[in-house]
Amino acid sequence: MPDCAKRLDAIEPFRVMAILARARALEAEGRDIIHLEVGEPDFATPAPIVEAGIAALKAGQTHYTPALGLPELRQAIARYYGGRYGIDLAAERIAVTPGASGGLLLAMAALFDPADEILLADPGYPCNRHFARVVEARARTIAVGPDTGYQLTAELVASQWGPRTRGVLLANPGNPTGSVIEADTLRAIHAVVREKGGWLLVDEIYHELIYDRPEPTAVGLGDDVIVINSFSKYFLMTGWRLGWLVLPPALVPAIDKLAQNLFLAAPTVAQHAALAALAPATRPLLEARKMELRARRDYLLPALRRLGFEVAAKPAGAFYIYADCSRFDGDSERFAERLLLEAGVAITPGTDFGGLSGRGYVRFAYTVDLPRLREAIARMEAWLR
Amino acid sequence: MPDCAKRLDAIEPFRVMAILARARALEAEGRDIIHLEVGEPDFATPAPIVEAGIAALKAGQTHYTPALGLPELRQAIARYYGGRYGIDLAAERIAVTPGASGGLLLAMAALFDPADEILLADPGYPCNRHFARVVEARARTIAVGPDTGYQLTAELVASQWGPRTRGVLLANPGNPTGSVIEADTLRAIHAVVREKGGWLLVDEIYHELIYDRPEPTAVGLGDDVIVINSFSKYFLMTGWRLGWLVLPPALVPAIDKLAQNLFLAAPTVAQHAALAALAPATRPLLEARKMELRARRDYLLPALRRLGFEVAAKPAGAFYIYADCSRFDGDSERFAERLLLEAGVAITPGTDFGGLSGRGYVRFAYTVDLPRLREAIARMEAWLR
Ligand SMILES: Cc1ncc(COP(=O)(O)O)c(C=O)c1O
Ligand SMILES: Cc1ncc(COP(=O)(O)O)c(C=O)c1O
Repeated sequence: MPDCAKRLDAIEPFRVMAILARARALEAEGRDIIHLEVGEPDFATPAPIVEAGIAALKAGQTHYTPALGLPELRQAIARYYGGRYGIDLAAERIAVTPGASGGLLLAMAALFDPADEILLADPGYPCNRHFARVVEARARTIAVGPDTGYQLTAELVASQWGPRTRGVLLANPGNPTGSVIEADTLRAIHAVVREKGGWLLVDEIYHELIYDRPEPTAVGLGDDVIVINSFSKYFLMTGWRLGWLVLPPALVPAIDKLAQNLFLAAPTVAQHAALAALAPATRPLLEARKMELRARRDYLLPALRRLGFEVAAKPAGAFYIYADCSRFDGDSERFAERLLLEAGVAITPGTDFGGLSGRGYVRFAYTVDLPRLREAIARMEAWLR
Repeated sequence: MPDCAKRLDAIEPFRVMAILARARALEAEGRDIIHLEVGEPDFATPAPIVEAGIAALKAGQTHYTPALGLPELRQAIARYYGGRYGIDLAAERIAVTPGASGGLLLAMAALFDPADEILLADPGYPCNRHFARVVEARARTIAVGPDTGYQLTAELVASQWGPRTRGVLLANPGNPTGSVIEADTLRAIHAVVREKGGWLLVDEIYHELIYDRPEPTAVGLGDDVIVINSFSKYFLMTGWRLGWLVLPPALVPAIDKLAQNLFLAAPTVAQHAALAALAPATRPLLEARKMELRARRDYLLPALRRLGFEVAAKPAGAFYIYADCSRFDGDSERFAERLLLEAGVAITPGTDFGGLSGRGYVRFAYTVDLPRLREAIARMEAWLR
């Protein structure tokens, strides 16, 4: 076989995939495994959304849509910012994408040249540095810890900005920590980025999953800001592969031509279904799921702490708890593997999220129901004793 | 706004988008436009496929699948090569992708480093050079004409191979010409690529739409060959966004980790529906559509020639006719615009497909039914007179 691209050496598979494969093998042997490693809600897509998808299929909606999405969906997303945040947004600024994943790739491809540097928090969503690498830009990860709520701050961005730095990518709330960047910090980071003449990208995929405080969106901050979002998490549509970007108006033609070439369009049935996801009648169903997730967090967090996991601050959003496991094992990959084999609980080693900070941490995703969470705690308690 | 990436200067929007927007505006004014510019069949997805999608949705199949696709779909695609071509293929070698588009991006990202050169035919599918550019590789387009059936040959590949050349991407049949590379030419090209130590990529998205001769697949040629395919065209599933790659076994882990990071997975409902697309009971429906497309070609080709368009050879596949319009106008963009405005027939200027060869050519897509095709010919006849 001829050589592959060198970038492959820099792109890592998710370690959680090995955990998942191991878990499936154990299940095939008849073992009962509790899955706290999976980064998607266990809930199926709510009925009105599914029904809208079915109706679209029955109506023969099976052709390509425009590259930036169905006009009525772009409009509905723009209106959503009006209703939800009181922000008046032109539908033209919305680009519908194949998941937040598609949005992240489009944004990286549109903004960053080879060797351009993008600042990212470590721990963080692992794909981000690989999106950068695919377009031959460079992600520079900055270790963050409990002192800054596991997020970048204006000071960090200012002090880490180098001659090749061209932008910052935040996730608000973040994966794996669920921590939120407050409105004033967000504005302060934006002020630094603006002064430096760079781009601010904010991934708000877990935005509607902030539990007990206001959700500070970056939409509306300025024409150097790109917001990434998705129907995957709050809207419970992971497998449909649909997300969106909120773009500065002047960037729309560039994203349009990139989307035409790279994706042609996002999935049609998902776009029709998403109209129902944004309909007011669906919201109570989504809110009920959100409250269920919050109840899980409120059970799991103190239970993990009681077992001896250290969690610096209560995660304000997403459905993850990022816990220090170094008291039990300083090697989170070994710890996760033993927990799976010996106690039947699958979790994600922190090394998936941070080369700098992940060795002593693990991520618990509360994507199983409360009885299963209680069972997981009981198993861990017996095992750790 | 800060600067964008330099690669944007090299990435062009489809010119056909301007034609399409113009056509829509005319339609909004009440004009009747015949759409021969659209690169997807007018047929809706056949009922058994749609029904399988609906059944999957009803069964709650709304979560992420594995990055390389549902195991049963990978198996079904592998079996398809057995039934269709008599090729025995391991399911592990199949990667399910978000369209052929997703497969092309994965392949480029996995194989080519910055400044690596990929040989492409001009005219050809315009996205290909942009996939290359997004990963900072370079497409080198080689002008091909009627003498080589608008395709690369072993001689061209050998003579154009340079010090930075690392691979060749063919489309068989090609877009916009519908021309086919025969089995012996394919083998000869592969021999050159193998001798040079490069990669051979073959896009077979129109493969099942070859009308009156054998379909020479590149699957099975060797471990330096990657085949790209899709459910979009023959299987009439454009809007579902689903395709696949046939990979050398040793490349599977690389594509897996790239797919995990770039896409997470292909759309779930599409994957379930695709199982029905490959089911034997669906095949007669697809074949009937294919026969309808052939009947359109067999009407349109002589009709265009009669009007004075030159078409070197009967296109053997796809649903396009690439015609020399220079007798009427040497500027195909102006010609297409006038044809739309003055005769109400929308076509694609050749400049979308070839910087080198497109100015005197236009592409007719026979993606409307025979009565509309007849009406288009009548309008053009009156207009050209
Ligand atoms: C922070 C973050 N961004 C983006 C994504 C991509 O999600 P999708 O492509 O399903 O929208 C994920 C998925 O887990 C995520 O955690
Ligand atoms: C030659 C060729 N390759 C790939 C594609 C991409 O198709 P899809 O992503 O829908 O599979 C197209 C679409 O027109 C095409 O013509």
